[in-house]
Order: sequence, then C-alpha cells, then structure tokens
Amino acid sequence: MLKNKYILDPWSIIEDKFNSLKMVDSESIFSLGNGKIGQRGNFEEDFSGDQITGNYISGIYYKDKTKVGWWKKGYPDYFAKMVNCPNWNIIRIEINNKLLDLNKCKVFSYRRELNMKEGWCERNVKFETPNKEKIQITSKKFISLKRENLGVIKYSIKSLNKKINLKILPAINIDIKNNDANWNQPFLETVKVSTNDNFSVVNSKVINSNFEIATFFKTKYFINCMEIQASFTKNKNENIIGSQSEFHLNPENELTLLKIGGYINSNDTPKNEFEKTISKELKSSIDLGFEGLLKENSKAWENIWSDSDIIIDGDVMSQQALRFNIFQLNQTFNGNDPKLNIGPKGFTGEKYGGVTYWDTEAYCIPFYLGTKNSIVSKNLLLQRYNQLSNAIINAEKIGLNHGAALFPMVTANGEECHNEWEITFEEIHRNAAIVQAIKKYVNFTDDYDFINKKAIKILIAISRFWSQRVNYSKDLNKYVILGVTGPNEYENNVDNNWYTNYSARWCLQYTIEILNKISKSEINIYNKIILETSLEKDEIKKWNKIIKDIYLPYSKELGVFIQNDGFLNKDLIPAENIPKKERPINQNWSWDKILRSPYIKQADVLQGFYFFDEDFNEDEHIRNFKYYEQFTVHESSLSPCIHSILASKINDLDKAYEYFIRASRLDLDDYNKEIKQGLHITSMGGTWMSVVEGFAGFRVKNKEIHFNTKIPKKWDSYSFKVNVKKRKLSILINKNTTTISLLDGEPISVYINGIKTPLKNKNL
Amino acid sequence: MLKNKYILDPWSIIEDKFNSLKMVDSESIFSLGNGKIGQRGNFEEDFSGDQITGNYISGIYYKDKTKVGWWKKGYPDYFAKMVNCPNWNIIRIEINNKLLDLNKCKVFSYRRELNMKEGWCERNVKFETPNKEKIQITSKKFISLKRENLGVIKYSIKSLNKKINLKILPAINIDIKNNDANWNQPFLETVKVSTNDNFSVVNSKVINSNFEIATFFKTKYFINCMEIQASFTKNKNENIIGSQSEFHLNPENELTLLKIGGYINSNDTPKNEFEKTISKELKSSIDLGFEGLLKENSKAWENIWSDSDIIIDGDVMSQQALRFNIFQLNQTFNGNDPKLNIGPKGFTGEKYGGVTYWDTEAYCIPFYLGTKNSIVSKNLLLQRYNQLSNAIINAEKIGLNHGAALFPMVTANGEECHNEWEITFEEIHRNAAIVQAIKKYVNFTDDYDFINKKAIKILIAISRFWSQRVNYSKDLNKYVILGVTGPNEYENNVDNNWYTNYSARWCLQYTIEILNKISKSEINIYNKIILETSLEKDEIKKWNKIIKDIYLPYSKELGVFIQNDGFLNKDLIPAENIPKKERPINQNWSWDKILRSPYIKQADVLQGFYFFDEDFNEDEHIRNFKYYEQFTVHESSLSPCIHSILASKINDLDKAYEYFIRASRLDLDDYNKEIKQGLHITSMGGTWMSVVEGFAGFRVKNKEIHFNTKIPKKWDSYSFKVNVKKRKLSILINKNTTTISLLDGEPISVYINGIKTPLKNKNL
Repeated sequence: MLKNKYILDPWSIIEDKFNSLKMVDSESIFSLGNGKIGQRGNFEEDFSGDQITGNYISGIYYKDKTKVGWWKKGYPDYFAKMVNCPNWNIIRIEINNKLLDLNKCKVFSYRRELNMKEGWCERNVKFETPNKEKIQITSKKFISLKRENLGVIKYSIKSLNKKINLKILPAINIDIKNNDANWNQPFLETVKVSTNDNFSVVNSKVINSNFEIATFFKTKYFINCMEIQASFTKNKNENIIGSQSEFHLNPENELTLLKIGGYINSNDTPKNEFEKTISKELKSSIDLGFEGLLKENSKAWENIWSDSDIIIDGDVMSQQALRFNIFQLNQTFNGNDPKLNIGPKGFTGEKYGGVTYWDTEAYCIPFYLGTKNSIVSKNLLLQRYNQLSNAIINAEKIGLNHGAALFPMVTANGEECHNEWEITFEEIHRNAAIVQAIKKYVNFTDDYDFINKKAIKILIAISRFWSQRVNYSKDLNKYVILGVTGPNEYENNVDNNWYTNYSARWCLQYTIEILNKISKSEINIYNKIILETSLEKDEIKKWNKIIKDIYLPYSKELGVFIQNDGFLNKDLIPAENIPKKERPINQNWSWDKILRSPYIKQADVLQGFYFFDEDFNEDEHIRNFKYYEQFTVHESSLSPCIHSILASKINDLDKAYEYFIRASRLDLDDYNKEIKQGLHITSMGGTWMSVVEGFAGFRVKNKEIHFNTKIPKKWDSYSFKVNVKKRKLSILINKNTTTISLLDGEPISVYINGIKTPLKNKNL
Repeated sequence: MLKNKYILDPWSIIEDKFNSLKMVDSESIFSLGNGKIGQRGNFEEDFSGDQITGNYISGIYYKDKTKVGWWKKGYPDYFAKMVNCPNWNIIRIEINNKLLDLNKCKVFSYRRELNMKEGWCERNVKFETPNKEKIQITSKKFISLKRENLGVIKYSIKSLNKKINLKILPAINIDIKNNDANWNQPFLETVKVSTNDNFSVVNSKVINSNFEIATFFKTKYFINCMEIQASFTKNKNENIIGSQSEFHLNPENELTLLKIGGYINSNDTPKNEFEKTISKELKSSIDLGFEGLLKENSKAWENIWSDSDIIIDGDVMSQQALRFNIFQLNQTFNGNDPKLNIGPKGFTGEKYGGVTYWDTEAYCIPFYLGTKNSIVSKNLLLQRYNQLSNAIINAEKIGLNHGAALFPMVTANGEECHNEWEITFEEIHRNAAIVQAIKKYVNFTDDYDFINKKAIKILIAISRFWSQRVNYSKDLNKYVILGVTGPNEYENNVDNNWYTNYSARWCLQYTIEILNKISKSEINIYNKIILETSLEKDEIKKWNKIIKDIYLPYSKELGVFIQNDGFLNKDLIPAENIPKKERPINQNWSWDKILRSPYIKQADVLQGFYFFDEDFNEDEHIRNFKYYEQFTVHESSLSPCIHSILASKINDLDKAYEYFIRASRLDLDDYNKEIKQGLHITSMGGTWMSVVEGFAGFRVKNKEIHFNTKIPKKWDSYSFKVNVKKRKLSILINKNTTTISLLDGEPISVYINGIKTPLKNKNL
C-alpha cells in the first residue's frame, strides 16, 4: 500500500504542503465540475511552476486530424477531443507592481481543501514575496450544480505586514491550446471579445465545426466584506481579457473579489441568444452573492449524497476514497443531458480525448443505475441505439456486412476515433459490454419496452457481427475468433481470447433468448423486428451452431480457462518477480517485451468471471482467480475493482479490501504514477461496484434481488442506497447483521445471504 | 500477365503515347542516376499535370521527427529521409510570352526513350500551343557515371510553323519539399544564392544536421548547332534561380541549350571547397561538350554491362525487363563510396525513406557479389559491422543485454528509424539475413580474414540476441520465439514463425561452426575474440541447447512446416478466390481482415526454403511450395523472385518463368498499382537471382561452385558472367548445353548439373 498523499478525512481531500513541483498532480485531484462544465484545479493567479491548465465543456469537441506513422485502410479521419476552453478563472495579481507568482514566493502556510459534501474547494496560503511583503490569499470556489453554466470564485487577499499597492485583473485567458493536439494547432478561434469594466465575454468557434462557445465573467469587489466600487482599466494584453482595478491596502484589510464566470455553448443555446442568456445567468446569480450561491450548491450536493453516498464506519481511508470516487462521477456526468456521456478523464485531463469507451457500459452504468433515476442509464443506452447505423458502417470497414455492427472503441458522436489497428479493429469485445449493459438495465428496471422495441436491434446487429467475425477451424473442428485484443491490452492480435469468445457466445444466446421472449409475448412486435432487420432463420441457425461449437481454450492440467491461444508458451513468472524499478512495465518496457510477457494489464479471463459469475462454481472461481491474479499488473485503472469483486465472491476479504483500496485510492495515492494527466473517472464506477456488487454481493437476477453481504475487517459497518426495479432500498451491513429497508416503491422480497426476506414500504 | 505498358525493346524503354494523367507513373520508370545522385524523370519545362518532382543525393538525409498515433517506449526519435533537393533540371520556356505547359498543349507526337545500353534518356515531342504555334522539343539527358556530381541536358526547341519569340530560363527551383515529410515541413534551408549569366549556384543546409549541399548549373546556347552568345536577364522569382535569355526563332531554326548541372555535398567535399570544386567540375566538362560527355558515359555503361549483363535470346520481354532491373541497380548504387547503401526506391521515390533494409543483405548482395569487385559487398557488410554498437543499444531497448544485437529494420546511420511496434521491435528475422550475407560473402570470396576478425563479432552478438529472445515453453517442452513478425508482414505478433525460428537456429549453428573453425586455424585470433566479446562457455552451451530444442511448427497431416502458430485455424481459402476488385488486398482490406486471413504478402516459409534449400529434399520442396504458393498474394516486391527460384528448383519452369516475369516486370507493367511512388529497386536484385540462382541453379558451397541449369521454354539461350572465388566465369546456356568458361583467375572445377567440370583459364 502506498503512503497517503493527502490528509485523511471522511468528507474532504486536504493538502497542507506546498510543493511547487507537485502542484500539477494536485490540479487533477482538485478538479471541479458539474457534469456540464469542469476544470482542473489550477491556481487563479499566475504560476510559473509546472501546471496543466484545463477548462472543458462536455459535448464540445474538435475533430483532430488523425496522426499515425503508417496509415492503415479503415482508420478514422479524426479523433474527437474535448476542447480546452478560454480560462475564465484568471485573477492576475500585482503587488507593488510585481506580478504575483507563488512559484517565486516563500510559502509558509498552505492548505487546500476539496469539500466533497458541499462541493467546494478552498485554498488558503500565506507567503512572503521576494520584496518581503507577507500576504495571505484565500480562494474558495465551486462549479454550480444548479446553474450548469456557472462557476463562482471568492478570492480574498490581504497583506500581513506592509501597506501595499494591489493591482488585480480578473480575466479570461484566451491563449489556450489543447495539450494533446495532434499537430500542435489551436482548436478554437476567437470570434469576438468584449470587456466592459467588471464584465467580459469572449466568443469562440471550434475550428472546422459548428460548435460555438462564449466564455464570460462578472465581478464585484469588497473590502472587509463591504462592497466597493472599483475603477477599471482595460487590459492591453490581447490574450488576457479583462479590466484591472487598483487598490491601496493597509495591513489586515482584506480585499475580496467575487468572480462569477463560465460558458454558454451552442449545443444548449442558439448562437444568437448567447448574449441574452449570459446576461440572464449573471443577473439571477450575482445578486444572490457568494454565500447564496454556495448554499444552493450545497443543497444540490446534499441531494446527490442522499442517494449515492456509501457510509463506512471505522475506516476513514476507505470512506474518503469512496466519497472521492462518487463525488468525481457526479462532477463528470449528471444525466441531465441525454446527449452527453462519460469521458475516461472527465474534465480533469485531455488524455484519451473522445468520450464514450466501453467503460461507460462496463463500469459506469451499474453506478448510475443504482444511484440515479433509470432515465439516466437509458439515455446512455439510447446514444448507442442512435449510433447503430454508424456502428454498421464501422463493421463494413472491416469487411462485414448484412447489418453487422461494430460499435466504436472511442467516440463522441458514433464515429470511430481510435487509430491503432490492434485496438480500433481488434478490441471487438466492446460490443459485448453494450449487451451486458442492456441486460443489466432491463434487469434493474424491467423496462421491456426498451429492449423489445429498440435494444433488440442492437442485439441482432451485434449477433450478426459475431457470427460473421468467427470462422470455422478445420484443424480444431471449432469456431474460432482470430486476431483480437481482449480487455488485457498487453496481448495484441491474439487468437481465441477466452473472454471475447465466451462473450460472443453469450451475446448470441442472449439475443436468441430475447427474441424468443418477444415472439411469445408480443408477436406483432416480433414480426415487425423480423421485417425491419430482415432477420432470417438461417442466421439464427448459424448462431446456434456457433453457440454449440465455439472454441473456449481451457487447460485440463491447470483447471483454468486459457486467456488466449499461446498463453501457456510464455515464460510464466509471477508479476511479483518484476523488479520494482521496472514498474509500471508500460513506462519501462518496450511493447514487444510486454506482449511476450505473461503480464496482464487488466482482468481478462477474470472480467468474464465478473460478468458471467453464475456460470462458474466456486472451485472454478478460486482456481481462475488465483491463476490469473499472479500475472496481473493492474496497469489499467479498470482492473483492481474487478479483482476486488471476485475476491469478495471467493470470500478472500483481505484481498478484496486490498484491491478495493487500490481501486478507490488509485488517484488519491497515485498508484500508476500518472496522476498529473488527470483522474481515472470511469473506473470510479468500479469502486462503487467493489462495495455494492463485491462486499454487499448485490445481484439482480431476472426477477430477484440478491445480497450476499460481507464486511472487511477494518470496517465496523457500511450502508448505502440502491434503486432497483422501481424501488429504493437502503442497506446497512454490520459485522453480524444485514438490514435492508424499502424506502420507496411496491413491496418486494429480496434474498439476503440466500434467505428470502420480504420488504414492506412503510410509507405505503 | 499484364499488358505491357512500354514498347518492347532489348535495350530501351520506350513510351510513345502522351497521357498527361500517367506522366507521374512514367517519371518513376524514366528515372536517372549514377549511384551518387539521381532524379525522377520529370519534364524540364513547367508541367501542370500530376507530377512528383524528385532529385536526391545518396547519403544526404534529414532526421524527420517521428510521427505516431500512440507512442511506445523504445520508438526512435526520427526517420532518416533522403532529401528532395533543389531541382537543377528546370528549363522554363515562354513562347510569345506564354508559359509553355505541355498539359495545356495539343501533343501530336511523343516519344521518350530510356536507352539502358548507353544510359541516357531522350524525349521528342511535337505539339501545338493554345496559340497555334507548332513546336518541337527534343531533350536528351543523362547523369554521368564518370562525373558523379554531374548531369547533362541537351534541350532543343524549334517552331514548326511560325516565327516565335522564345524566352528560355534554365534554372534551379528551390521551392522543393519532400512529399513524405511527417510534418509538412521543409528539410532544407537556403544559405546562399548566386546567379551570374549562364551560371548559378544555390547553397543549402539540411535543417537540424550538418549536411550541406550546393546545387549548380552552367549553360551554353546553340542555334542550329552553332554556339551563340546570349544576353541574360536575372530572374526575379526568388524560388527559380537563373537568368533568362530571349531569342527570335524562325521556323525550322533550332535553338539548343546545353545545361550541365548537379550537386556537391559535404559528405565528399569540405564545405569551404564547394566553390572550387564546382568550378573544376564544370571547367573540365563544359568544354568536352554534350557529345564528348555522352561518349565517356556510354563507355562507362559499356564496362558495367560487360560484367553484369544477362543476354537472352528469343524473348525480348524478358531481355528488356532483366536489363531494366540491372540498369536500375547500377543507377542506384555503384559501390564506389563505402558509406552508401541501397534504398528500396533508390532515387525514384521517397517512400520508405531510410536507406538500409534487410533487402540489402537478402536481395542485393548476391547481385553485387556476382557482378562487381568483392570490395563492394564487403563495404556493405562493413557498414553493419561499424554499426554493431548501435545494434547493441537497439537490443537493449527491447530488454536484452550482454552484447546482444538487434540490427535496425531501417537505418541511414545505424540508428533505428522504423516506428511500428510490430515491425520495429518484432520483425527480428532481419538479424538472420545479415548472417546469411556474411556467409554468402565468405563463400564467394574466401575472405576468411573478414569473418575471423570482424564478422565473427556480428555473429556472436546476433547469437546472443537469439539466445535471449527465445524462452522455454514448459507446455511444449521446447524453446519458442514469441511475438514476432516474419517476412510475411500480413501476420503480426505471431508466435513461432517457422522462418524466424529456423533462421535463429541456423545463426547459432553457423556461429558455433565459425568459432570452431577459428579456434582450430587461428588460436590467437580466437582467444582475442573470446576476450573482446567476453564470450562464456555457458553461452555456447545454451546455444547448443536451443539448437537441439527449438520448436519448428510442422503438420504431419499436410507434410509441411507451419508458417506460425495458429495458421491452421484460419479460413484456408486459396488466394485465387479473392475477388479481383479486392486486389491488392492491402489497398482494399482493413488491417485486421488481412491479418486473420491466410494470405501471405511475401514468401515466408518459402523464404526459408530459399536460404536453406539444401536442408530439404525434393518432396519437401514440392509440398511446401505448393502449399504456401496458393495463399501468397505477392504484395511485396520481394516475393515473386523467391517463388521463381524455388519453382526452378522443383523443375516447374513454366511457373518459374511466370514469377520471373512478374518479378522483373513488376515496375514496367505496374503489377501492384503503385508505380508512381517509385521503382522497387532492392527487389531488382531478386530478378537477377531468379536467373542466376533460379534458372542457372548457381550455388556456392564451401569450396565448390555448382550450376544446375535449366532454360525457360521461351528462351533460346541465355548467358551471363559471374565473379566468384576470385574467378570470373562466363556461362552460356542453350536448350541442350551449358558452357562455362573461366575468363579470369586460377583454374578451378565447377559442377555443371552434378558433373564436375575442370575449367582452365586460357589466358594463363
């Protein structure tokens, strides 16, 4: 276990040391967002130390021309990348005509707190400038959940020793580029700039697209909490948009700036209404003042926590980490806008661009199903449904036809963005994760209408994909799937990845099962589907043949499924033998060395044991877990959570806890030494799963709800709520007892550790 | 067989149709070079049709920053690319003040001839301009073999109907960029420009390197063959460097421009001597006049042909193609400069940048061994020897150590340039081709000193590579080589590529064999090697274990070696079933579809049968040839030659001829629809091999020289010379007889079709 980087606290992340070299790491941790807009935890004032500025708007992306060394037929034209927007957070400070830069000051007291309960971040710093002025700055800010386009900063400054001349320039910095631009080019062009004393707006257009945005802010000044009228001088630097005000400040007098700013974008607001909307937004908020806005924001967070909190007694390290994960998921995606999705790094970094990965279906949908109205998950699935025609084009690119669909590896709008052949064309298991999510959604919600009328078309298209993507090996007398990359991306272009083959078979089975159900219950709908999809009997016949005869590599000797053909020819030395200085291997080994090693980036066979856990008995669970765990290096954020859930399943609670900590504190403790690139948002859903599906053993079977509860040694109790089958359940697990209450919805029975337990809604 | 694109002629390539859309293809075919400098067959005058301008200097390259989609650890920093130089060939013509552009004229007679016997290219074109002037242009040019820095153009123009005003601007175009620049950036910067009437020089510097070049030319004017003094007006366009002259030309009067130009470069000439050298070069050549220079060039080509011609009676298609191949090899590389090597496209195109591929050792060294002084091949091998330390660094990048060497896939100076993991890190069989070339060189030359003192260090380093790159599979109880790409690049990251495994074993065997020989014959040298390389007994012990236990995939049922693990799981449909419109598959299929197909880009198992032909009996040859031929699509230029040689070996002469034609006429008839990118220079060595090692069955065994001669049906006879073991042999093969004469060197016996035949040198 790593040393904790931040102070342990049940509700807050607290940093109390100023290390100018590490601020760039903390920028990721102290990111703020509301699902619509978000930003890294950059300082407002100038900072010459290492920093990565980031301000983003969900759904606003640039089509970055594909960059590859060697073009392969079928590669996409562009990679959709979230645009790094003009930075409205800027507060440039001059003290006695010297630009303030904490990197050049002597900091003698520093504290930053991210308060997750109320959703704000406060920074308090005392320092001495090179000119010996002792200064204190307090900055408190939040991005409003209630007002999705707005962020709010209260920035206070006072001198602790001398009278000072203070120049303060609240501004928008438009000299911003994406750090991950393929060609080092700008993504935005400035269309219009206007500054009028305490109000500035910058209109920008995403180059080569129709997206337009406006960045704006308005300010008020206070001295010792009394509002004052400042005078303004328009700033001359053409990249820093705003007006400067000047103050003479006696020691112990505090100047406070209230800055309300944010973004309007053309996805929500007609371009010709930008001005009006900004003015409306600002008008309704500025009068409320900082405290008023903060209060309504705290209230909104209170509502979120009410549904999605997991309360742990006895282990603050777990408590803090869990809340950090739930907090970030809610900062990244709120489900309000059916067009948005969950980027792997949310608003905290640019790596991975795009938005939608299989992460959404495999690791996030369970969390949103459990903690939000079911429309949120439905909207996510509807996005895939609406992108089915693109997925069909995508499958045509790899030579398939007749309505076969391959959903993209990475996408913003349904078009594939990824451009490594071994991923783009070969990491095809992503198709199965979508079917998994559909199944989970239907099991959670009993929304048969959705599957019968819409999702069934996805199922058929995906089944067509698998039935064309297999081929029959005369050598094995089996159907095989050649040339794939499984969830373990440390194997490329392998044959018969067990997980992929097993998932393919399951997709075919599930599609047939659903078709049969529909044909029995809704013959008219069934006939309509057959007509619309031109589904032929011979197709289903072939699906059944594949189900019967697909090759699933297995070692009798070891009693385990084999990850892929050839795995047993490797030099099978457990990962614990890798010298510590060579970890993580993806930062130290060449790609071929990684590929020929037995080391597993993330659960692969075990990912299958997670999805299909009921297909295997306890011995199989134990054997496969033990076999693959020894080779797994967890260099994907998506790995430890699955291991935690499976360790719970086989009652190895110490291990389950260890992996839970690794999953939940991945970013807080920077396990993979890459935190400055941003947080691993989508894997945070896996942390929630580690508790709810892992320790609490929560499963939804067709008509039944099961809990198989356990509790880690270090925890005294834990409790959470879950929405399932139109009910809201509250679960409290102590060392010896599990108490489940029905908070909302019709009476139902749940199985607690195998025992059927009728639950009544006391409110009914 | 494809339709011939050019007129059949034993010594010339002739084009008699003007198709402005296809000129870009012919530019590749009509390329000229002398091993030091070279150029595509661009028109001298302006041409607005599709064209790719190319002028190159061997050994002058730019380090183009690596461009990849996703960086992998160990990727090289740059790709070395031959610099597209300022174009000294420019002759800009204005007729009655209108710029001449053949693309805008009505061409009514057109003929271009590449005369390979004498090494010149002549173009004769009659056309009508939009203003109805009927004009004839005759341009004859060559790149001088004797004066390596010079090219010569005689450019004549006359009006056929009207009196015309003619403005003529012989110039250097400096507005040239490489077409394949990764970042669309220039590779050269202009340092100095000077123009003085009939003489211009442009000094340029390769950006980010120390290479400097000077491009220059000098002119003379003639009317009806009488030299005249022109007046000059310095051209104002800053990219077109030269002086314009103006003439009033009556019909049937012919103006002729003699333009001598070329390049000096800092690899040969100290930078401060550029001016002096240019002046010397021009002085000694301009007075000789066009005919004098042409004559000395023809003489030089006569000498080349005397050693390297293959004369075929009865089949002009073969004759033309063979000479085209031999001609291009000699245009690309002359062996004069020990620092130069053979680029896959020579001076005819920019694709593949770099210079040295395994092509040099596997496909070119046999040709140069057979037709040139042995120092030429030795120099090529010495380059590898001198780059051994870089190859050791290269192996360290993939995790090997203790002096293991991995020679680069592509290099200009010993540093790896390639940047696709499946090639860069995994196409490791290239190491074995170097050992093959060493063996061939020693067998041809009996230069034991080279192997004992130098090449043995390469052998040891490569054996160390293989012995570390294998691992022991407990599952197979064999040594395996995982994660490689074989010669067939349509399989990536496969395990146990038979060719690679077999070659690895052979490298170990050959190294041990040579070490044993040295220890017996030269114990001091042996001790020195052991000391210098820290070679340990345990290493050789391990090599022997690997030799004994390496896994070589084989199918008993089929009686063939298996290209790589998993090959038999594929959908094994012969390539003839691929729809014609989908060929070549690499232009029509996505990469994953190619990879999971059974289709073979170039000989792989069969490449092994070529190198190790004596290890297998006739049945094995036939079975493996027939099995793999059916899946081979020959989308690498290196494939048909090997198939031709093996078809000769198994006495299938029709097939051998068919593949010979495909190999030799690949570019002339544009089999792979890519000719505009340039010629496949290195595979042209394979064409020579198809005749000499194929039809004539020429082999050098340790002490013996063998011929096993056959003759294709269409040929009446063929003859060639070969240098071997310090002898020069002349071989004449008729339908029924083979006559071998010793032209030079000590008496020797050769085996002709198994019969030992003593040869005497009549001159002795």
